[in-house]
Amino acid sequence: MPTLGPNSYGKAETRVVRVVRDGAVHHLKDLNVSVALSGEMADVHLRGSNANVLPTDTAKNTVYAFAKEHGIASAEEFGIRLARHFVTSQQPIHRARIRIEEYAWERIETAGRAKHSFARRGQEVRTAQVSYDGRCWEVVSGLTGLTVLNTTDSEFWGYVKDRYTTLQEARDRILATDVHARWRYGWSDDARPAPDWERGHAEARGHLLSAFAETYSLSLQQTLYQMGARVIERRPEIDEVRLSLPNQHHFLVDLEPFGLTNDNEVYFAADRPYGLIEATVLRDGAEPRIPTD
Amino acid sequence: MPTLGPNSYGKAETRVVRVVRDGAVHHLKDLNVSVALSGEMADVHLRGSNANVLPTDTAKNTVYAFAKEHGIASAEEFGIRLARHFVTSQQPIHRARIRIEEYAWERIETAGRAKHSFARRGQEVRTAQVSYDGRCWEVVSGLTGLTVLNTTDSEFWGYVKDRYTTLQEARDRILATDVHARWRYGWSDDARPAPDWERGHAEARGHLLSAFAETYSLSLQQTLYQMGARVIERRPEIDEVRLSLPNQHHFLVDLEPFGLTNDNEVYFAADRPYGLIEATVLRDGAEPRIPTD
Amino acid sequence: MPTLGPNSYGKAETRVVRVVRDGAVHHLKDLNVSVALSGEMADVHLRGSNANVLPTDTAKNTVYAFAKEHGIASAEEFGIRLARHFVTSQQPIHRARIRIEEYAWERIETAGRAKHSFARRGQEVRTAQVSYDGRCWEVVSGLTGLTVLNTTDSEFWGYVKDRYTTLQEARDRILATDVHARWRYGWSDDARPAPDWERGHAEARGHLLSAFAETYSLSLQQTLYQMGARVIERRPEIDEVRLSLPNQHHFLVDLEPFGLTNDNEVYFAADRPYGLIEATVLRDGAEPRIPTD
Amino acid sequence: MPTLGPNSYGKAETRVVRVVRDGAVHHLKDLNVSVALSGEMADVHLRGSNANVLPTDTAKNTVYAFAKEHGIASAEEFGIRLARHFVTSQQPIHRARIRIEEYAWERIETAGRAKHSFARRGQEVRTAQVSYDGRCWEVVSGLTGLTVLNTTDSEFWGYVKDRYTTLQEARDRILATDVHARWRYGWSDDARPAPDWERGHAEARGHLLSAFAETYSLSLQQTLYQMGARVIERRPEIDEVRLSLPNQHHFLVDLEPFGLTNDNEVYFAADRPYGLIEATVLRDGAEPRIPTD
Repeated sequence: MPTLGPNSYGKAETRVVRVVRDGAVHHLKDLNVSVALSGEMADVHLRGSNANVLPTDTAKNTVYAFAKEHGIASAEEFGIRLARHFVTSQQPIHRARIRIEEYAWERIETAGRAKHSFARRGQEVRTAQVSYDGRCWEVVSGLTGLTVLNTTDSEFWGYVKDRYTTLQEARDRILATDVHARWRYGWSDDARPAPDWERGHAEARGHLLSAFAETYSLSLQQTLYQMGARVIERRPEIDEVRLSLPNQHHFLVDLEPFGLTNDNEVYFAADRPYGLIEATVLRDGAEPRIPTD
Repeated sequence: MPTLGPNSYGKAETRVVRVVRDGAVHHLKDLNVSVALSGEMADVHLRGSNANVLPTDTAKNTVYAFAKEHGIASAEEFGIRLARHFVTSQQPIHRARIRIEEYAWERIETAGRAKHSFARRGQEVRTAQVSYDGRCWEVVSGLTGLTVLNTTDSEFWGYVKDRYTTLQEARDRILATDVHARWRYGWSDDARPAPDWERGHAEARGHLLSAFAETYSLSLQQTLYQMGARVIERRPEIDEVRLSLPNQHHFLVDLEPFGLTNDNEVYFAADRPYGLIEATVLRDGAEPRIPTD
Repeated sequence: MPTLGPNSYGKAETRVVRVVRDGAVHHLKDLNVSVALSGEMADVHLRGSNANVLPTDTAKNTVYAFAKEHGIASAEEFGIRLARHFVTSQQPIHRARIRIEEYAWERIETAGRAKHSFARRGQEVRTAQVSYDGRCWEVVSGLTGLTVLNTTDSEFWGYVKDRYTTLQEARDRILATDVHARWRYGWSDDARPAPDWERGHAEARGHLLSAFAETYSLSLQQTLYQMGARVIERRPEIDEVRLSLPNQHHFLVDLEPFGLTNDNEVYFAADRPYGLIEATVLRDGAEPRIPTD
Repeated sequence: MPTLGPNSYGKAETRVVRVVRDGAVHHLKDLNVSVALSGEMADVHLRGSNANVLPTDTAKNTVYAFAKEHGIASAEEFGIRLARHFVTSQQPIHRARIRIEEYAWERIETAGRAKHSFARRGQEVRTAQVSYDGRCWEVVSGLTGLTVLNTTDSEFWGYVKDRYTTLQEARDRILATDVHARWRYGWSDDARPAPDWERGHAEARGHLLSAFAETYSLSLQQTLYQMGARVIERRPEIDEVRLSLPNQHHFLVDLEPFGLTNDNEVYFAADRPYGLIEATVLRDGAEPRIPTD
C-alpha cells in the first residue's frame, strides 16, 4: 500500500479586520491568516476517520475569537498565539504553521477632528510565518510587492558569451525589481524575550530600500547580496535573509529609424520573460532554513 | 449583406517609461498607453484592404517617438498630442481616443546625494482618456484602486423589506469601497486655454478623499453623491463626475458562540458578492457623457 | 446644487450553484449573477433616505430563492425572471439589468455508474445580459475567454506607411486572438415567443469558431467582420454582434544569429502591447445598441 | 561578512510556440519555460564580476534555438535537453532546473480540409520540472487548474469539537477542489531508458480524475490519499505524488426564511477562506523529495 508522506491541513485566507477604538481615534489591523496543522493524521487519510481532525472551520473561528480576546499587537505576535493554541490544546496536532499577510492602511487627513478614516497604502504586503512544534519557534517575516527602480548607476558587462549570446553590454541601464524578501529571526525559545516585531519589520524594510538605492550595481546579484547583507549587519536579531528579485527589464527603445537619439530617456517596460535572481544571505555560522523553492 | 457598425482599432497597452535627467536629480513618468482610431475603415473590414490602415505597430512607435520629442508633461497633455497627430496626419482617420494609465513612483530617501531611486507608490492608478474628432476635445480623467474605509459614522436602515429581505438594520458599520472615479473637464476647444491637468487631478483626488472621510453616511449612495458634488462644487473646470463604488462588506463576526461580545471590533472582510453603487454627478445644465456601462 | 445623473445599484457577483438530481444522474448550473436596479433614487443620493431602496442583500437572497423555486433553464431565462420580478414588484424600480456569467462543467467519465462528478470545462465564460424597463426586453448574450489561433492563412501588407512605420509586411503569420463576443437578440416583446437561448448560444459560438478557422485573413478586421456576418446570416433571431479581438502577436524569432533558419516554426508569444480590433456587425436596418465602450 | 547561501539565476517565463507543418496538417506546442542555474556564483554576488555569468538573455535565446533545432517532443524531453546543455557546456554551472508550463490546444473542426486552426483547451496547465546536477536527473511532472466537483457521495462528521467549534456535521455535501498535482518519476539515470512522458502524463491525469470521482468521501484527506495512491499503484514509473487541494466550499443556502426547503439543490460557492489539504503519497520505500512548501 502506498505510504503517506508529509501532510498538513487547515483554513487558508481567513480575512480579519480588527478595530481598536481609542475614543474618537480608531486603529486598524487588516490580516489574511492561513493556518496549517500537522500531526497524527494517518487515520483520516487512510480510512476517512475524522477523530483527530479539528475542523478547518474551527481554525477560522479561532482566528476571529483571538482577535477579540487578545487583540493583534503584530502579525508575528498573533501568529505565535495561534500556533501555541493549536499545538498545546490539541493532542494529535504536533506542529502548526501560521502564515499572515498584512495590508497597510494610512489615515486620511481631514480638516475635521475625525480619526476613523483610512486609505490602503498600496500593493506592498507585509508577511509573517510562524512555525511551532511544541518546543521551538521559527519566525520568518517579510514583504512582497515592493517595486523599486534605479534610473542609473547600473551596468552589465563582462559576462560569458556562447553561441547563443546576442545581448549587448550595457554601461548605463535602468534596474528595476519587485522585491520579495523573507527574513528569519534568530529567536526560537520561549525562555528568551521575543524581538520587537513591529520595529524589526520597519528597520529591515528600510535597510532593503536604502541598500537598493545606494548600491552602484554591476549585476542584480550584487545588488541582491548588498540588500541582504545590509539587513544581517544592522539587525542582530535576524540570522537569514532570502530575496527573490525579478529583473524587470526596461529596454531602451531604438529611435534611430525616426531620426531620433535615445539618450537613456525612453524605455519599454517589458512583462515577460524576465530575469529571476534568488539568493539567501546568512549570518556567519547560521544555517539556511528558508525554503528555496 | 450585414452592415458594419461602430468600429475602432489601435495598439493597446504600450508601456513607456520616460526619464528626465536634471543633473543628478532624475524624474520619471510611467505610462500604459492605448490608442484607438476610427474613420474610413469599411474596406479593411469588408474586403481586407489595408490601404487606409496605419499599422497598430506604428501607433506604438509613435508613442515612443513622442515621449522623446515632446516629453510627458502630463498624461492628458501627452494624450492630446497623440490624438491630434493621428487625426490630423492621417486623412482616413476621423477620430482618436487615447487611454492612459499612469503609475506613481515616489523617491526613495537615502543618506547619500543620489536622486535616481524610486519606489512604486501603490496600487492606485491615475487614468486619462482623450477623445478628438478634429474639432472638439473631450478629456476624462480619473483614478482606480483607491481603497478607503471608515470604521464608524455609517448606518443603514429604513429600507424596503419584501418577502426575501433578511438583512438586519445597522446603526454603526464599517463602510469600505474601492473608488473608481472619472471626471470630465469642460474644456473642449483649442481656442481656450487647457486646464492645469496635474493640479486638477491632485485637487479632485483630494476632494474625493475628504468627502468620503467627512460624510456621516446613511447609505453608500449618499456618500457617493457627496463625493461627486464636492468635486463639482470646488473645481469649476470639471462638469461631470462618475463614480463606481463597490460596497466592500465587512461583516461583524458573531462571537456569541464563544462567550464573547463583539463591540464592533472584529470583522470578516468579504470578497463576493458585493454591493455596487454607480452614479453620475453633474454641474447644473451639463449633459452626462461619461458612459454608464 | 450638483445634479444627480444616471445611476444604478445592486448586488454584484452572487455565486449560485444549482444542482438537479434526476435519480443518480445529477445536473449542474454554475452562475455568477449581478443585479443592477434604477428608478426613483434621488432621495437616497441627496438625503440618505432608504425608503425606496430594496437592500442589495435582498437581491442576493432573491437569486438563491429563485434558483430553488424556478430552477435555471438557461442564464437568459433566469435573468428574465429576475428582471421582471424587481421591476414589477417594486414600484420605485423602473429598470433592471441582470448580468450573468456561466461556467461550464463536463461530466467525468468513470467506469462506475456514478453520474455526479464534473470537471470545469475551461477558461471560456458564457455571458448573458438582460435589461427590462417594464415594457421592452433587451437580451445580449456572449462569451469571453475563447482563445483561438491559426498557424497560417493570415497575411498583413499594403498598409499605410508614415514616418513612424517600421513594421515589415507579412505574407504568412500566426493569427491569434481571445474572442470577446456579444450578440443581441431581436426579441423584445413578451407577446412574442422567446428564442431557444441554449441553442442560440451553441449555434452562435459554432459560427464564430468556424468563420475564424475558414477565413483566409488579410487583416484581423476582415476576420472579425466575417465572424460577425456569419452569425447574422445564419441566426435570424440575432440582430447585432459586437466583437472585441485583441491581436495576440506571435513574433517570428530571428534565429539567424545562431546560424538557423526560421521557416515559420518558432514564435515568441508576446503579452503587451497588443493590437485591439473592435467592431459591431448588424443585420441590415438594425440599430447598434451594444455599448462600444 | 555575511555568507552567501543557496542561490540561482536565470530567465523566467520565456513564451515559445513551436509549429510543425505536416503538409496542410499543422501541430502546435505552446510552452512557458523558466531556466534556473546554480554553481560558482560567489564572485557575482560578492564583487559584481560577471565572468561566470551566462546572461539570462542567452538562456532565452537557447530556448528558441533548441525549439528549432530539436523540436519539442514533450515538455519533459525539452527540459532535459536544456538542462543538459547548460550543465555540460558551462563549466561554472553545476546545476540546472527547468520549469515548463504547457498550454493545451485542440483543433477547431471545420467543414473544409483546413487543419491549422486551434482553440485553447482551458485553464488547466500541464507542468514539468527537470533538475540535473551533471549526474542525476529528477523529473517532476504535474498539472494545475483542474477544477473538479462531486455533487454527492461526500460526508464530514465525527470530528473534534472544541470551544471554538460551531460547524454542523454533514451527511451529504458538495466536494469541490482545484487540483494541483505533482508526481516524481523514478527515472534518474541516463543509462536507463526514460519513461514515455506524454503517456505518463495522460495516464496520471486520468487516474487522478477517476479516483476523485469514484471515492465515496468522508473527508477531503481521504479523497486526496485515494487520488495519490491510485497513481502510485497504476504507474510503476512514478514514485511520489504530491497533491495540494483547496476545499472550495459550497455552502447550502438557508432558504427557510423564504418558506422554502433546500434539498441539497442551491449552494453558495465561496471564495475565501477555504480549507487547504496537502499531502504526499509515496511508493513504499521511496523518499519524499517534492518540496512541501
